[in-house]
Amino acid sequence: MKVDKISELTTNRLSIYLRCLNELAAEGAKSVSSDGLANRFHLNSAQIRKDLAYFGEFGVRGVGYDIADLREHITKILGLDKEHRVGIIGAGRLGAALADYYGFQRTNFKVAALFDADKDKIGQHFGEIEVFDIKDFSEVTKKANIDVAVIAVPAEYAQGVLELITDAGIKAIMNFAPTPLRVSGDVKLKTVDLTISLESLSYYLALPSNVNGAGLKPNSTNRRKK
Amino acid sequence: MKVDKISELTTNRLSIYLRCLNELAAEGAKSVSSDGLANRFHLNSAQIRKDLAYFGEFGVRGVGYDIADLREHITKILGLDKEHRVGIIGAGRLGAALADYYGFQRTNFKVAALFDADKDKIGQHFGEIEVFDIKDFSEVTKKANIDVAVIAVPAEYAQGVLELITDAGIKAIMNFAPTPLRVSGDVKLKTVDLTISLESLSYYLALPSNVNGAGLKPNSTNRRKK
Repeated sequence: MKVDKISELTTNRLSIYLRCLNELAAEGAKSVSSDGLANRFHLNSAQIRKDLAYFGEFGVRGVGYDIADLREHITKILGLDKEHRVGIIGAGRLGAALADYYGFQRTNFKVAALFDADKDKIGQHFGEIEVFDIKDFSEVTKKANIDVAVIAVPAEYAQGVLELITDAGIKAIMNFAPTPLRVSGDVKLKTVDLTISLESLSYYLALPSNVNGAGLKPNSTNRRKK
Repeated sequence: MKVDKISELTTNRLSIYLRCLNELAAEGAKSVSSDGLANRFHLNSAQIRKDLAYFGEFGVRGVGYDIADLREHITKILGLDKEHRVGIIGAGRLGAALADYYGFQRTNFKVAALFDADKDKIGQHFGEIEVFDIKDFSEVTKKANIDVAVIAVPAEYAQGVLELITDAGIKAIMNFAPTPLRVSGDVKLKTVDLTISLESLSYYLALPSNVNGAGLKPNSTNRRKK
């Protein structure tokens, strides 16, 4: 298996395939063809074949993919066969919303702790999740086995928080602060900039109406026609 | 100008260039080369030249790009020369967090209204933003000139909400519900699935440590080396 050359776009697609396969498995299906998967979930069948061929021969011509087998493989490739524990820095509205984000239910990501510098917030709970003093970040992450950090602080504090996180040895970071951050070494930083997402919608609205649709490359996750 | 063939990846990069140019302009800079822009903001200079060449000849060889000129062009391309008004459906924690998301400050996106079906929430305010009855969605969006909708409801309600939004004539939708939604016609739907973002971090953590870094295609926005 060539694990050393998957782009983030590919891992994103694998995440989607896995979700679709889970849905099919829940319905009792045992196998599915790339065309079947594409039609059912509005995906691109050629892309599916290309993505999956990359990881070896999963499909049987004329029969399709064995769903259980494929789920197991994708789960392993994505590292989803073990639990990840998440620490969220910033216990404001965004941090609190992320702490009980419904999308994380039934995933292997468990929010283990919130962190803040605000004395009024430290010691509070959001659901079952306690807010710790950001000063104790390194200690708490070690005790709670946190391996993923989420930055949910205003832009001006984000770089400082990032350095605190990497100093504590965390290698995987998701950043919601709308600012470019600099990381060094073997740390994976993923910035989710909601403004950029909104701006791509703005672009769409600004297109002359006759090129709407034709004007945008269909994207497997974002744009689907019935 | 060829406006009819820009992919979302390109518009995302244009958003980033614009932010960088704004920062340079605020510092008083008048022009910048693609290499200067790349070095300063940890971007790819060949990609910058390719992206900008696509929109016409902005750069002058040996001098670089005129910052004011380039900002104006990108702003127009992205439709950011006019205000967009945003309605958020779902006044739970996520919706409330989005209503005052600090990243939207100093942008041309103004959150104009929240919507919910919960009678306890209707009539409440988050900051200056009122929560309206989802039943009045069509009427309120027309009065408030809302042209962008954000779905911040649990997955099981998302498809129904999407149909309500498109029935009201909204053409640009951002979805936070972690589920594939189906749209038809000339509607642009952008799903921001935070679980997929986390799963790409999980993939990174699962890589054998000797291929970390080399294992991921560098992405202009997500991974930067000092």
